[in-house]
Amino acid sequence: MFSLIPKDEKFFDLLDQQSLAILQGATLFKDLATHWQENHPNIVKLRDLEHECDITTHEILDKLNRTFVTPLDREDIHMLAKQLDDVIDIIQSVSERMLLFRIKTTKDDLIELADILEEAVSIIPKAITSIRRIDRPKRILDYCIEINRLENRGDRAAERAIGSLFQKEKDPMEVIKWKEIYDSVEFAIDRCEDIANTIEGIVVKYG
Amino acid sequence: MFSLIPKDEKFFDLLDQQSLAILQGATLFKDLATHWQENHPNIVKLRDLEHECDITTHEILDKLNRTFVTPLDREDIHMLAKQLDDVIDIIQSVSERMLLFRIKTTKDDLIELADILEEAVSIIPKAITSIRRIDRPKRILDYCIEINRLENRGDRAAERAIGSLFQKEKDPMEVIKWKEIYDSVEFAIDRCEDIANTIEGIVVKYG
Amino acid sequence: MFSLIPKDEKFFDLLDQQSLAILQGATLFKDLATHWQENHPNIVKLRDLEHECDITTHEILDKLNRTFVTPLDREDIHMLAKQLDDVIDIIQSVSERMLLFRIKTTKDDLIELADILEEAVSIIPKAITSIRRIDRPKRILDYCIEINRLENRGDRAAERAIGSLFQKEKDPMEVIKWKEIYDSVEFAIDRCEDIANTIEGIVVKYG
Repeated sequence: MFSLIPKDEKFFDLLDQQSLAILQGATLFKDLATHWQENHPNIVKLRDLEHECDITTHEILDKLNRTFVTPLDREDIHMLAKQLDDVIDIIQSVSERMLLFRIKTTKDDLIELADILEEAVSIIPKAITSIRRIDRPKRILDYCIEINRLENRGDRAAERAIGSLFQKEKDPMEVIKWKEIYDSVEFAIDRCEDIANTIEGIVVKYG
Repeated sequence: MFSLIPKDEKFFDLLDQQSLAILQGATLFKDLATHWQENHPNIVKLRDLEHECDITTHEILDKLNRTFVTPLDREDIHMLAKQLDDVIDIIQSVSERMLLFRIKTTKDDLIELADILEEAVSIIPKAITSIRRIDRPKRILDYCIEINRLENRGDRAAERAIGSLFQKEKDPMEVIKWKEIYDSVEFAIDRCEDIANTIEGIVVKYG
Repeated sequence: MFSLIPKDEKFFDLLDQQSLAILQGATLFKDLATHWQENHPNIVKLRDLEHECDITTHEILDKLNRTFVTPLDREDIHMLAKQLDDVIDIIQSVSERMLLFRIKTTKDDLIELADILEEAVSIIPKAITSIRRIDRPKRILDYCIEINRLENRGDRAAERAIGSLFQKEKDPMEVIKWKEIYDSVEFAIDRCEDIANTIEGIVVKYG
């Protein structure tokens, strides 16, 4: 088994842990978006999860700053940690905004976007753990291509959602709310593509 | 007295100067938010200040690019300079937008947010000047924790502000305007947290 | 003729190619903004161009990651490539949003903004190709100053556009749509200034 710098394996463990927590967040959000109600338990669960992810991000960056030799370029790990944290931050803030906006019922377009988000996020743990086997770049790059494919699907779904919103919804207050919700979920999916790009960069450099 | 590279002390002077200018901006904005009127002199003062800060940012980056040895990692100073500039840019743009939106009277929620912003910004000069005494990391890290605490307070205040806006305000035009104003002030407070994170990273690396 | 590292000249060719593609995009957009209609051929042309630019960005980053010695700092080329890609992404997304928003007729304020955007983008290829002659920094810096000047003009034009929108438009749906369109074009012009700042940084470092 190939390993860049074995003793820093802990970084990978933390990145694995973080990517699994974020997948948990995407699954909680998909469930919330599908069965939205103002007292849904996932709203509180997402708050707690976002807080835990903050602590893990902090742990990764702290470890990174204290370590002279790291398995990858310092900048790459720093960027991965930040980009993973961005995803959960956005997911949690959408959940919070839906509450503040006093959303009463969900919409099919949101469920579709939440579904694509979960699918994209579900590939991240596989891609990240594969970095340990950077001697097998093809598998990692296939995961990245899959995330890019989902990001394109997300773009199309968001376009349909926004288009339908402006066509059907006559109440400007509803347009303001739903436009922000859709834009934010699309933004979260875009961050998954950022993660794929960072991983791809690592593979090209070390693979 | 401990000093990393004495001859580049000038960087710290410029960062000190910039952080004090930004505090001045946050104070001007708090006063403006409290006593808003379309011909308030602080609108023009913020324009001038933002322009001066641009010049200082340019001076820092220029000096950074011309200097081979710097007291800190080039990237860290670059990031600090950019993040400081972001804060004043956002503050000034909120003031400008309030004018363009023809805001007639202020709101308590804005005054509260401007107050939290000023409090968070007031810690930045202390944190930045403390980097000179990186051999006393505890004090610097305490400032960073304080900024993080205020950022959390800002999040809660912004949530209350947005929640109350969507609950009470029936005019969608007012919602569009105030949502952007609140979101922008919260965004400025978030940038203070970015600065705290950058400083924390520096302390962990060199402390 | 001065050259940093002759054998990596290919990077400059790719950056030249990309900056010319982005200028093409800005010209397509100006034409679209001037003669807007929902079946204008430039909407499809911008989609194709954005896709081609994605491929070129990928090629630049891939080449960068595979190359050990590059003519400039790796980070600078990476940033330039990303910032060029940002410009075309924003331009294309505005065109797409205008379609989704079912915009019927254009506005003079949009034409003016699209015009300033095209002017700013038209300087980028000249500035980028001049990096090859980094021994003549004055010319490069003059291009950067010109872009900064146009970014200021863009700010003023966007302020007038937003001000006039909130003053004249009584339909909140129209305000939502046009505010996003104006903000996005201004955002694209801001990205041109980012490119100028990156180039200026390169000149100061190597010039």
